[in-house]
Amino acid sequence: MQLGLIGLGKMGKNMRERIRRAGIEVVGYDRNPAVSDVASLEDLVAALAAPRIVWIMVPHGDPTTQTVAALKELLDPGDLVIDGGNSYYKDDAVNADSLAERDIHYVDCGVSGGVWGLEEGYGLMAGGSREDVERAMPIFDALRPEGPREDGFAHSGEVGAGHYAKMVHNGIEYGLMHAYAEGWELLEAKDIVTDVHGTFRAWTRGTVVRSWLLDLMVKALEETPHLEGVSEFTTDSGEGRWTLMEGIDNAVPMPVLAAALFARFTSRQENSPQMQAVAALRGQFGGHAVQM
Amino acid sequence: MQLGLIGLGKMGKNMRERIRRAGIEVVGYDRNPAVSDVASLEDLVAALAAPRIVWIMVPHGDPTTQTVAALKELLDPGDLVIDGGNSYYKDDAVNADSLAERDIHYVDCGVSGGVWGLEEGYGLMAGGSREDVERAMPIFDALRPEGPREDGFAHSGEVGAGHYAKMVHNGIEYGLMHAYAEGWELLEAKDIVTDVHGTFRAWTRGTVVRSWLLDLMVKALEETPHLEGVSEFTTDSGEGRWTLMEGIDNAVPMPVLAAALFARFTSRQENSPQMQAVAALRGQFGGHAVQM
Amino acid sequence: MQLGLIGLGKMGKNMRERIRRAGIEVVGYDRNPAVSDVASLEDLVAALAAPRIVWIMVPHGDPTTQTVAALKELLDPGDLVIDGGNSYYKDDAVNADSLAERDIHYVDCGVSGGVWGLEEGYGLMAGGSREDVERAMPIFDALRPEGPREDGFAHSGEVGAGHYAKMVHNGIEYGLMHAYAEGWELLEAKDIVTDVHGTFRAWTRGTVVRSWLLDLMVKALEETPHLEGVSEFTTDSGEGRWTLMEGIDNAVPMPVLAAALFARFTSRQENSPQMQAVAALRGQFGGHAVQM
Amino acid sequence: MQLGLIGLGKMGKNMRERIRRAGIEVVGYDRNPAVSDVASLEDLVAALAAPRIVWIMVPHGDPTTQTVAALKELLDPGDLVIDGGNSYYKDDAVNADSLAERDIHYVDCGVSGGVWGLEEGYGLMAGGSREDVERAMPIFDALRPEGPREDGFAHSGEVGAGHYAKMVHNGIEYGLMHAYAEGWELLEAKDIVTDVHGTFRAWTRGTVVRSWLLDLMVKALEETPHLEGVSEFTTDSGEGRWTLMEGIDNAVPMPVLAAALFARFTSRQENSPQMQAVAALRGQFGGHAVQM
Repeated sequence: MQLGLIGLGKMGKNMRERIRRAGIEVVGYDRNPAVSDVASLEDLVAALAAPRIVWIMVPHGDPTTQTVAALKELLDPGDLVIDGGNSYYKDDAVNADSLAERDIHYVDCGVSGGVWGLEEGYGLMAGGSREDVERAMPIFDALRPEGPREDGFAHSGEVGAGHYAKMVHNGIEYGLMHAYAEGWELLEAKDIVTDVHGTFRAWTRGTVVRSWLLDLMVKALEETPHLEGVSEFTTDSGEGRWTLMEGIDNAVPMPVLAAALFARFTSRQENSPQMQAVAALRGQFGGHAVQM
Repeated sequence: MQLGLIGLGKMGKNMRERIRRAGIEVVGYDRNPAVSDVASLEDLVAALAAPRIVWIMVPHGDPTTQTVAALKELLDPGDLVIDGGNSYYKDDAVNADSLAERDIHYVDCGVSGGVWGLEEGYGLMAGGSREDVERAMPIFDALRPEGPREDGFAHSGEVGAGHYAKMVHNGIEYGLMHAYAEGWELLEAKDIVTDVHGTFRAWTRGTVVRSWLLDLMVKALEETPHLEGVSEFTTDSGEGRWTLMEGIDNAVPMPVLAAALFARFTSRQENSPQMQAVAALRGQFGGHAVQM
Repeated sequence: MQLGLIGLGKMGKNMRERIRRAGIEVVGYDRNPAVSDVASLEDLVAALAAPRIVWIMVPHGDPTTQTVAALKELLDPGDLVIDGGNSYYKDDAVNADSLAERDIHYVDCGVSGGVWGLEEGYGLMAGGSREDVERAMPIFDALRPEGPREDGFAHSGEVGAGHYAKMVHNGIEYGLMHAYAEGWELLEAKDIVTDVHGTFRAWTRGTVVRSWLLDLMVKALEETPHLEGVSEFTTDSGEGRWTLMEGIDNAVPMPVLAAALFARFTSRQENSPQMQAVAALRGQFGGHAVQM
Repeated sequence: MQLGLIGLGKMGKNMRERIRRAGIEVVGYDRNPAVSDVASLEDLVAALAAPRIVWIMVPHGDPTTQTVAALKELLDPGDLVIDGGNSYYKDDAVNADSLAERDIHYVDCGVSGGVWGLEEGYGLMAGGSREDVERAMPIFDALRPEGPREDGFAHSGEVGAGHYAKMVHNGIEYGLMHAYAEGWELLEAKDIVTDVHGTFRAWTRGTVVRSWLLDLMVKALEETPHLEGVSEFTTDSGEGRWTLMEGIDNAVPMPVLAAALFARFTSRQENSPQMQAVAALRGQFGGHAVQM
């Protein structure tokens, strides 16, 4: 079996390696010639026998849109494109419809696992027709963790469902991280638990809060016991916002996600304008000194 | 009529003036001789004819406790002590019980209005027996705004009810201020409303959001159109925390108050520990660079 | 001066009356012949001398879009259309561009005040060119409260700015209402303040939390002292969601608005799915009985 | 080695079994004679050779206080009492001081794991002196999961630290559960992911959100695919409230915990009073019909 893989960044490079280990031939393309197997998209397509499967693993938005547009020209009817990036789920219908004009098939696939996926396997959520998803199953099987397929792979629904599932997955992730973070700050702030790192480590087995994120938190604390020097500055990459907007659109209260997302916004502000306003108001009625 | 008034800070000094304007004789005492009418608490008590009314207007906690203890020794049975500071409502029962041992009466009174109260009158919420509250009514009438008594004064309940009402009043105030602050930040962040100050001013009459706090916000923006140089650093003086704890104790969800209070906590942090933890976690799974 | 006014519902009917009281001739049209001055849009246009001003006051979305489309056909170059409904600000550019094809001018205007506006005047926020806004000023002056124009009217910016300002106004309103509501619930839940209605009334003058919404709360409590029989079920009409989405888009934390909006979502759920999930989880690890 | 174990409810009974499997003799006492090994606390003490270790596993508050008081009379100097229940951390100092009057030692120990602990082991967090904790180590080793001690046991600090750590653990747990719950509700509300259960299952391996709670969620969905018939009604057992109060006391923002806790409060309300207030307010200004 063959796979064309476009985008060999942090995620793509590891995925190429994992798929190859499963005995599948992978032809990888990246704008960076140092990591690319071929010189161009044309070469990638030429290196694959039809009907082809081509997996896109580039940033969402324009890079993905342009890659789909290029593949639409280069591929043949009957070929299959899989978008494995973190695309917005509404883009999937657009991409699928565009490719369908040339009878090129489309599957969207959410991929979770970060840099650990190479060794531990990736959690996968696919959206598309049953036939297309089945066709790509050897790829999914190579990427997902060993064990029962259902524990690391889902055919979540039609086109768009894979990215929607991944979006919600990431929204949940925001909340999980923030829950641990709040608890950690409290334990550090109060001088009663003298071994915070050890306490977090003791939670990694047997407890109700054990999780992979907790393992990572313990690992981070092993490296930097009180996170000395770590900046609060935290970006957000889109899925958290999208998930919250979906909550709003569907009248689903998402207070935990909102709190986690807003904390990221605040982490990037030097001087919170809304708190300036509160401070100014207090100054007006209370004669509280407004610090400059 | 006479009143003894202890504590002549920002609030107390204005209150003395307003009560005097109503034709009541006020003997004020403050540790600061520059503003005090008498040299000591003993002199204050001596200057008043029994049965006396003495109003305490000092910071809550120890200063109030110590003043109550001193008055317990100095006053006579039948005298009345009013605590008009922002005391914790649970302190009222303690103070009332202690004074009752010498048959000294006790009323707690929440006072709202800030530095504007001198001219506009203070909103008052009193807790105590009907008899004690009636006895102090000329003082309350002097302090409250002109107009119907019920629009600026309430006998909220037994001892403690006045401070409880004031505590909740302040909890609400946190939420109101933050609601305006969020809206202001959004209008400043988005480049579509080019006259944010004018828009806030246009809200002061006719609209659903008109309020005294809005008037103050407009005033603040007149002085500093974009709050340039105002620090986000915002303290909290107790009532917000107490109100939220009461919500927790009584299983009353208070998400708006919690949000406003937490934003103040965050405003005082240079580098949020919980966001350090989130940043560290992201670094672990995503290979995201952790900024130092 | 003449004005064409389309939409004579709760808001429009009162506005017609207020503008007429200012001595301006208003020709009103509504689908409901019982309140309409003319039989059709055609008749409305025919009744006005060019250059005309026509104010749209119909529900946002399709009704407004269709009205704009109809006016585009019926009006003459140089006429001015004002959308005073609660339209989404992104619709304004579309409407303005469409009308500009026939050289018809466009202003958007946020209108606040509810059913009280007839007597108290409406707070207004206009978006459009200086020239167009000036031209409609007699209408704005008729609608806004008496007193300085700047206290009840703002020219907030170019087309779209009026509705953006009104959207944020409504977002703030959500937070304000919820802040009072939380405080009221706590006072009702705790058995210390025995006169909750009286306490709220005492806040209406002199205090920091005094506002028009507080006046309305007192009025509601006069009618129904403990809100007996009032349903929690609360709809949301769009602006709250839009404002929160704008916060997300512009990385402005809006925890107070989010809390208020989510509480409305929850108020409409018989059995919260997310709490079903929490209950089910607790049943799994704790052996807690899951109530059916 | 011997252990006295008081309280053989859902947790205690399983713990007795697990400790016995490790070859330690356990004498269990419970008010319920059907599960008790001895007829009385006196018999329990008599059955153990001094110096004794007695583990309390009864509900926090009065039941624990009374058990400590009884043991103070019955035990000998040099004996060790361990409170393994979910006691408030401030009770620990009281209990330890009281027992110290008779030279009886005290350790508090947070225990996590629920009904699964029997087979999987319990996560443990102990507070007390190094000597006392060492002395009880065979019991801790019997209870904790197999593997490195540090992965399932921590000596978190002096007396009180164990319960403090457990309290924060539970506070985190609230947030984690709610994060999954929000995501689940959104997936159920939106009709794009057609296999929600399968998607959750696919997250259990490889993904960033994998955790034991997620495994339990999948198990719950296996039993009841859409949680049909599960009530939203969710109690809270103390630790969530205590953790939030600690956050307030220590000026640590805990928006995620607050959201999760408040959602539980709301889940128990038939008709939210605060939403009644919002509905009533809207009725006042908007003429919106207030549903009864």
